[in-house]
Amino acid sequence: MTARSDEGMWLLNDPPRKPLKEKYDFDLTDAWLARAMNASVRFNNGGSGGFVSPDGLIVTNHHIAADALQKLSTPGRDLYHDGFSAATRAEELKCPDLELNVLRSIEDVTDRVAAAVKPDAKPAEAAAARRAVMSEIEKESLAKTGLRSDVVTLYHGGLYHLYRYKKYTDVRLVFAPEHAIAFFGGDADNFEYPRFNLDVAFFRAYEDGRPVRAGHYFKWSEAGPAENDLVFVTGHPGTTQRLETLAKLIHRRDVTLPYTLYRLRTMEAALAQYAEQSPEKRRQAATDAHRVANARKAFGGQYQGLLDPKIMEKKKEQEAGLTMQLGLAGEVKPLTPEDARLKPWQAVAEAQTVLEKFEREYALYERGDAFPCELFTIARHCVRLADELPKPSAARLREYRDSNLESLRFELFSPAPIYPALQRTKLAAGLTFLAENLGGRHPLVTRALDGKPPLARAEELVAGTRLFDPAERKKLADGGKAAVEASDDPMVKFARLVDAEARALRKRYEEEVEEPERQAYAEISRLRFKALGRSVPPDATFTLRLAFGQVKGYRVGDEAVPFHTTFGGAFEKAEAQHNAEPYALPPRWVEGKGKLDLSTPFDFVSTADTIGGNSGSPVLNRAGELVGINFDRNRFGLVRNFVYTDEQARHIAVHSRAVLEALRKLYPAGPLVKELVGKE
Amino acid sequence: MTARSDEGMWLLNDPPRKPLKEKYDFDLTDAWLARAMNASVRFNNGGSGGFVSPDGLIVTNHHIAADALQKLSTPGRDLYHDGFSAATRAEELKCPDLELNVLRSIEDVTDRVAAAVKPDAKPAEAAAARRAVMSEIEKESLAKTGLRSDVVTLYHGGLYHLYRYKKYTDVRLVFAPEHAIAFFGGDADNFEYPRFNLDVAFFRAYEDGRPVRAGHYFKWSEAGPAENDLVFVTGHPGTTQRLETLAKLIHRRDVTLPYTLYRLRTMEAALAQYAEQSPEKRRQAATDAHRVANARKAFGGQYQGLLDPKIMEKKKEQEAGLTMQLGLAGEVKPLTPEDARLKPWQAVAEAQTVLEKFEREYALYERGDAFPCELFTIARHCVRLADELPKPSAARLREYRDSNLESLRFELFSPAPIYPALQRTKLAAGLTFLAENLGGRHPLVTRALDGKPPLARAEELVAGTRLFDPAERKKLADGGKAAVEASDDPMVKFARLVDAEARALRKRYEEEVEEPERQAYAEISRLRFKALGRSVPPDATFTLRLAFGQVKGYRVGDEAVPFHTTFGGAFEKAEAQHNAEPYALPPRWVEGKGKLDLSTPFDFVSTADTIGGNSGSPVLNRAGELVGINFDRNRFGLVRNFVYTDEQARHIAVHSRAVLEALRKLYPAGPLVKELVGKE
Repeated sequence: MTARSDEGMWLLNDPPRKPLKEKYDFDLTDAWLARAMNASVRFNNGGSGGFVSPDGLIVTNHHIAADALQKLSTPGRDLYHDGFSAATRAEELKCPDLELNVLRSIEDVTDRVAAAVKPDAKPAEAAAARRAVMSEIEKESLAKTGLRSDVVTLYHGGLYHLYRYKKYTDVRLVFAPEHAIAFFGGDADNFEYPRFNLDVAFFRAYEDGRPVRAGHYFKWSEAGPAENDLVFVTGHPGTTQRLETLAKLIHRRDVTLPYTLYRLRTMEAALAQYAEQSPEKRRQAATDAHRVANARKAFGGQYQGLLDPKIMEKKKEQEAGLTMQLGLAGEVKPLTPEDARLKPWQAVAEAQTVLEKFEREYALYERGDAFPCELFTIARHCVRLADELPKPSAARLREYRDSNLESLRFELFSPAPIYPALQRTKLAAGLTFLAENLGGRHPLVTRALDGKPPLARAEELVAGTRLFDPAERKKLADGGKAAVEASDDPMVKFARLVDAEARALRKRYEEEVEEPERQAYAEISRLRFKALGRSVPPDATFTLRLAFGQVKGYRVGDEAVPFHTTFGGAFEKAEAQHNAEPYALPPRWVEGKGKLDLSTPFDFVSTADTIGGNSGSPVLNRAGELVGINFDRNRFGLVRNFVYTDEQARHIAVHSRAVLEALRKLYPAGPLVKELVGKE
Repeated sequence: MTARSDEGMWLLNDPPRKPLKEKYDFDLTDAWLARAMNASVRFNNGGSGGFVSPDGLIVTNHHIAADALQKLSTPGRDLYHDGFSAATRAEELKCPDLELNVLRSIEDVTDRVAAAVKPDAKPAEAAAARRAVMSEIEKESLAKTGLRSDVVTLYHGGLYHLYRYKKYTDVRLVFAPEHAIAFFGGDADNFEYPRFNLDVAFFRAYEDGRPVRAGHYFKWSEAGPAENDLVFVTGHPGTTQRLETLAKLIHRRDVTLPYTLYRLRTMEAALAQYAEQSPEKRRQAATDAHRVANARKAFGGQYQGLLDPKIMEKKKEQEAGLTMQLGLAGEVKPLTPEDARLKPWQAVAEAQTVLEKFEREYALYERGDAFPCELFTIARHCVRLADELPKPSAARLREYRDSNLESLRFELFSPAPIYPALQRTKLAAGLTFLAENLGGRHPLVTRALDGKPPLARAEELVAGTRLFDPAERKKLADGGKAAVEASDDPMVKFARLVDAEARALRKRYEEEVEEPERQAYAEISRLRFKALGRSVPPDATFTLRLAFGQVKGYRVGDEAVPFHTTFGGAFEKAEAQHNAEPYALPPRWVEGKGKLDLSTPFDFVSTADTIGGNSGSPVLNRAGELVGINFDRNRFGLVRNFVYTDEQARHIAVHSRAVLEALRKLYPAGPLVKELVGKE
């Protein structure tokens, strides 16, 4: 299926030259690839973007910019809601904690990682050895190149590649439209199409106080894509589960996803209730609320997919197909359960049985689902830095390895505002959720609650902490163990109170689940490469990938859904919905309607293979010009985590012409347009 | 504690004469009681009300009228949102399926019920015998009196009383204000105080096409209550758990409530997402959404209470106190676990262990949490009527006993509108919730889903059913088993598909949990009566009770919260919140502000003991005049299910003067005012 369909989030160092040539007669050149790599940008808060001018201008989605917009806003000035436009470079707003990464090189380090793990090592030893060698490789690379260096696990343990990034931490906001047009249709239309969203924002990367001369950038296409065009998406898809075994997917369906949906609905309800209390509280909770609602819809779609026997049957066939190919040549019956070659599949299944016993505890205490507020995250980092830094880098919890410390401290000391009442609400919701999941008698619950109901406990922790102040965090982080132990800050004490149990759960997870899975998937990958070669790219890992596809409408029942929408359609939809939330166009659009060419294409779809994390990805044409900014999938694409189809599933992008038309006619953004296309 | 505090939802046939005399020097006369009984009204959709004129006029809450308001609304005419006022009796709107009950008599039938159960009966036999004798008593009573007759289980099985009601099914809407003033502050202020809500509505009961001459009614007080006044609440508190054993409360905390909150948040999220799709869909989902949000907040408060070790400690002391009193005189140490007198407590604990094994399955399949839409309820009734009616009344599932059939059919054949898209959304949410709880492999899940994902399954069931049409329901209900078996209606077939399993779960629940609990509580009650007499009234059972208390403010920290709010306060609050949802006053109020006496008391609080179901309850003064309409508790009262306190916990009522002032100055309601107080 792969060779025929447009499936694939391809590695930049193993690009899909062959299918592109065969299906689209396109020659993927090294120069094309070099630009794709060096002009694509990773937003470390979970999205993608791309350089679009020689002066460090970067385009992404409004909803990826949301975190920065929120942090730059104040009770009197709501940039997330109202948008922003810098008239001059001097007016560009520096983001408090936005880190961007640009990929510079990829190196295969699989052999070195494999060599570090002794063949007869016990799981705990193997996990420690693997973690150590990964840290070492990263530390060496950082020392040698000065670049951020991450060893990435591909094929769930089949390959290890070292990714080196140029890092930008002085990132400034240039332009964002109003939330109402960026997210027109709101949650109701999220993951739907036709859509009418100007989901774009512009930033500029700076270095030493000057705009970055990036060297590579994508030329903005004034025309945009036409129907049936071949297009490419270069971005950072977050996670997919296509190569996971059937046993793992069943575990996700029956254990992980129900828990996840339960958690998301709990947080969504808490945030909605908070937002209802006043317009200012609505403003404070806006991005949290959007993030949670978006995740709820994405995971909800995944869950419906896994409950679809047709999809599970397909996965079963894929697995049987692979294991059959491992059988004797010419023989088409599946291997018997006793066949030693099936052992890795059984090992993954066994790991799920182990995981099921403590997955909730692990997610609640160590992943932090019970403590879902920034103040706790800060407190835990302070506590753990004190414990971890004295150890050699290779022996630390992975996020405290030397090569990651700069990014961690950048985030930890962020001056972004933290709202006490919102922290209280989120923490109370998390503590309540903890009790709901484990029961009021569970030792993890009584330990965290300390003899108070969740609401009262959250209140006392937030009321007493001084971690709102970055200087206080710095004092603790720099003061080491002595400072942390001497601290009477209730949130710090709380993070200490739950730390031993959290660490124990992590250890258990890493040794009893993650390590056996990695070893099993390493073996499965070996067998897969033998049978199928590299024709199937690895699952997504929030690293740069190249996808391609065709700009193409689709059918739903009798209805033909067009490949693009228009500005006119947005006004029609708003009118049909009485301009009521979430279909209320911003005043600027209502008043400026007469100025717009209503036939301008607004959003478009293509068959290219994307997933969450691709938000903000540049969509490019054959010439490598930017013709769109990816921002969503339609609902048929929600099962892409498990299976790719191109019958109805599409990703959705803002048309490059829409951006120009809106900027020219409605916004005070002349210089921005000029920077993009050379004229206002 | 009972004698000193105002705790108690007292039985009308065992009224609190003594504490009233002792604490308030008030003589509760038979005449006072007779009026309280005959002028109080039960709203069968879950609330209370009272006659307030000799011509059958009834006051209740807007949020109790909500169900009828919604059913009387159409896409063009939103009575729930905009309110309603009948200028003449001819304009009063007949509700499609509202049944009101007025209590006429109470008779103790405990001995007869007890005598029907043989001492050596097995639980299944005992349950059947008890169900049979209850049906018999009801049937005899109905035949003899023509009154609706219900045997009510008190003290969880300690006493059985026969309640006889006059029933009204021709109930017409007279007046309702706008939702925005009835529920000013929305979910944010629900269960909070100070409040500013005109949460009232008026109906009129008719018989034979003429207004009912009720005989008893409450005179409307023009003055309303003053601080420290003794007041009474006569209404129908739904359920409390104060006399449940500690083991039962722990089970609620660790099993039932977490599940309940999970379910409510699931439904709340689904309804919120539905409402966001368009203003019309928001209208359709409005009352469902309110009901679910209200329950979520109430159960959320209960849950916080049960997670409070101080409250559990108190329950423990109460239980130890009771069991100690059963010990030898003079001895104050608790009974040893081996003492036979503790057996009923152990039996309740054992019943929880049994229940835990199948509580979710029972709630999902038999209570219907997996199928939370009206169309399924209708289909199930049609299917079950066909199975049950051929049996003798005493042998049927309890809701199909002869004495209940009229009410059941009244509801079943209601012409109230049912919206397909909303049904689909609710059913899809329920089926998804089913899978989340039991896992995709569970036989109850695969049976219900029939090889489709939940969304697709809900879609096919709702798309194909003809049960929207009351005539279709009637055909099935009257056609008996042959009609049901011949039906190809997908919803009917679905109800049949899940019926055997649902019935089995119900049987298991009734025999293995309910019956052992009843027997145990019967014994506990016997011991309690011996030790404490009847000083502790039974837990609430949605039957008429009398509560009393004092009109009184309270303190929160340093802040004194006044016993009443004013109209002026409402305008201040709206202004402080920029008149934004949910603090947007209706245009009538904004424009009419100048006409109002802003010092008019709006809402007030008292210490009287109430719980959900008391909504709409008349609040009376010593003279038996109506001084308020109860509509809520403050958040300190959320734990009243388990413990009563009067330090900060209060119920909240609309002041009788507020109603008059608003009706006189803002609404075209002259005749209504005249009917209430004799002059416009």
